[in-house]
Amino acid sequence: MTHSTSNRRQWLKQSSVLGLASATAASAIAESASTGLPPQVPSWTTSLGKPFLSPAYGVPSEHEKHVKRALLPNPGPYPTASRTPLQSLHGTVTPNGLVFERHHAGFPSIASQDHRLMLHGMVDRPLIFTMEDIVRFPSESKVYFLECSGNSALELKKPTGVTAQDTHGMLSCCEWTGVRLSTVLQEAGIQKQATWLLAEGADAAAMTRSIPMAKALDDAMLVYAQNGEMLRPEQGYPLRLFLPGFEGNMSVKWLRRLKLGDAPWQSREETSAYTDLMPDGSALQFTFHMDVKSVITSPSGGQTIQRPGFYEIQGLAWSGRGKIRRVEVSVDGGKNWQDTALQEPIQSKAVVRFRFPWQWQGQAALLQSRATDEYGHVQPSRSQIIADKGMNFYYHNNAIQTWQVSAQGEVRNVHA
Amino acid sequence: MTHSTSNRRQWLKQSSVLGLASATAASAIAESASTGLPPQVPSWTTSLGKPFLSPAYGVPSEHEKHVKRALLPNPGPYPTASRTPLQSLHGTVTPNGLVFERHHAGFPSIASQDHRLMLHGMVDRPLIFTMEDIVRFPSESKVYFLECSGNSALELKKPTGVTAQDTHGMLSCCEWTGVRLSTVLQEAGIQKQATWLLAEGADAAAMTRSIPMAKALDDAMLVYAQNGEMLRPEQGYPLRLFLPGFEGNMSVKWLRRLKLGDAPWQSREETSAYTDLMPDGSALQFTFHMDVKSVITSPSGGQTIQRPGFYEIQGLAWSGRGKIRRVEVSVDGGKNWQDTALQEPIQSKAVVRFRFPWQWQGQAALLQSRATDEYGHVQPSRSQIIADKGMNFYYHNNAIQTWQVSAQGEVRNVHA
Repeated sequence: MTHSTSNRRQWLKQSSVLGLASATAASAIAESASTGLPPQVPSWTTSLGKPFLSPAYGVPSEHEKHVKRALLPNPGPYPTASRTPLQSLHGTVTPNGLVFERHHAGFPSIASQDHRLMLHGMVDRPLIFTMEDIVRFPSESKVYFLECSGNSALELKKPTGVTAQDTHGMLSCCEWTGVRLSTVLQEAGIQKQATWLLAEGADAAAMTRSIPMAKALDDAMLVYAQNGEMLRPEQGYPLRLFLPGFEGNMSVKWLRRLKLGDAPWQSREETSAYTDLMPDGSALQFTFHMDVKSVITSPSGGQTIQRPGFYEIQGLAWSGRGKIRRVEVSVDGGKNWQDTALQEPIQSKAVVRFRFPWQWQGQAALLQSRATDEYGHVQPSRSQIIADKGMNFYYHNNAIQTWQVSAQGEVRNVHA
Repeated sequence: MTHSTSNRRQWLKQSSVLGLASATAASAIAESASTGLPPQVPSWTTSLGKPFLSPAYGVPSEHEKHVKRALLPNPGPYPTASRTPLQSLHGTVTPNGLVFERHHAGFPSIASQDHRLMLHGMVDRPLIFTMEDIVRFPSESKVYFLECSGNSALELKKPTGVTAQDTHGMLSCCEWTGVRLSTVLQEAGIQKQATWLLAEGADAAAMTRSIPMAKALDDAMLVYAQNGEMLRPEQGYPLRLFLPGFEGNMSVKWLRRLKLGDAPWQSREETSAYTDLMPDGSALQFTFHMDVKSVITSPSGGQTIQRPGFYEIQGLAWSGRGKIRRVEVSVDGGKNWQDTALQEPIQSKAVVRFRFPWQWQGQAALLQSRATDEYGHVQPSRSQIIADKGMNFYYHNNAIQTWQVSAQGEVRNVHA
């Protein structure tokens, strides 16, 4: 059964809340009949609106100013990221103005003509590229999610965030355009012993990561555009690496250097950070993939359901390994699960919106979603992930999120 | 053969322009070896960048200010539309700030809570909806192009625009989210004799069009979001009708009224405008579909190819009837045609980016693209469309566009 058929059938069976609207309409229509005008003509229909190019690069409605990137409520002296307002968004695209930010020493303003990418190490011909060189390579455009490996990290020990923006907002999804990295590497000639690639950013942190050549020669891209236009400055303008499905920090922004070698470089950001501490005191290193995950965005924490009736439970699901195959929803804290409808097209390593028809009649509820990817990986509960990895790790928390709905319709972040 | 394989193979066979870069790299790397630093460390790597939330709703790079919506060079006292800078965009998404504008009396600023949609006429239960009502219906998200029926109209008689923005810029493509119109109509109860639907906008023009019920019950939507966020004010915030593949003006913005009836209303915008004058003095009315069309965006009018070598000819193709099946490119003004690679996923009534590998060695050229949709409709040449419809029509010019490349690499808009 398709999404639309399923939800619509349920809607038609259950709808009743709009009975009130009907009476309003009848009196308005009677008034209209006597005046010959449409009912209650508003002031904006009787006066001229704003002209073209106001402004030439458009901005959101003045009535939507609450939809913005935000830091956590108490970020301390060293905030680490601004977050995407997932609870206010629709569909799958994150508009560029709301894509989450994570940078380690602020973001630079680089003119495109001043930027260079150097490619050296175990190559036949070391090369330095201008942006003009890069843009002339054969290009591709792909929709991929981007998630910080620290997304939801603070949720492991106790429920910390208020909204979905707080708990899961280091997640965005865009159409990225650029050059397949393998094309550029082949231009320089890859030497046989090269098994690792170093990527270095031009920001003041010189953000640096080691990447296995297998990924570099697979779907990795050098990206210069997002959602149709050139990269935003905080997203790496004019050039970033993009590693689909891998933790966000590895998609190095303001990319200035690539070096081929035969071992990882053990840079600061893969030794002092971005490793996962295990219960026995050892640490997992190079945990690249973002695991299968989902979150309900509506209703979600901080929202209040205003009155009983039909609601569409909605959210996002994604997997760093491929396509989402299934998303289930529970309204009783995980005792019972039901399949949701997934919005087509389902793209590999991109977010998918799931929808589930729900009648709320004032009952308390515990809302959860559970995603499964095409390889059969199932999103774990919090207790499963703790049994597996302990309580000391920070990155890669993909546990099922629980939203508690009270009898008054208030939605809160809880551990179930 | 896939897109990437094909273009990359050609690239690897032909690439040579980067030989220069190699020498630069060698000296830079020698310098680097002696200092122990990466070569030519720029100032932005040695000083702290801008902080988070700068601003909280992000904006493009200060180095991309030339990428903006624009009026035609000499718009006169009554400009009719601002246009999307197609020649500066990548992929298929049009970012919201650059979606073309067409409005008939300016655009209003309406608060979401003040907006109402009235549904009446041949229905069992007349209804008035708040935005809260609309958003609670089962929703869907779809990628569709939007094109003004007057796009390229001025190109029929003589080559008028300088850039692709001038000639084809009343075209954009977004992910739209809303409610299937049929769901809302069924809520009111559609009476048997209803065959037409009137849609009226809340702008000062009260933009009004008649729509066949067959379309209203097919893929028509009531849309409240575009590219993830709520509609922009100039795109109909908080609610617009969306008729996939139909001429843009019918997707009525600031939608305030829907009325069901048994005949079209013959409104101003379907009698005095938006009809197509034929050679015999009669006029075609209700020419809803936007026909199959394409345009090369790179290289395109106003650009200059800087030096000989490999270039990827790129552009966009779309059809109001369904999916694009094929796009061909000619570099000799239509004498010979070659197939291009189409970026997946190809979605119905959405733009598709096509790419074609090209060696430019300083030869004069006439670049053209020709699209074919899944039903076999082929984009006509200008002479074919004139033979078919004469020279007096204004809307629905989907003729093949020609860009002339001079031996100096200058690209101009011409008729071939």
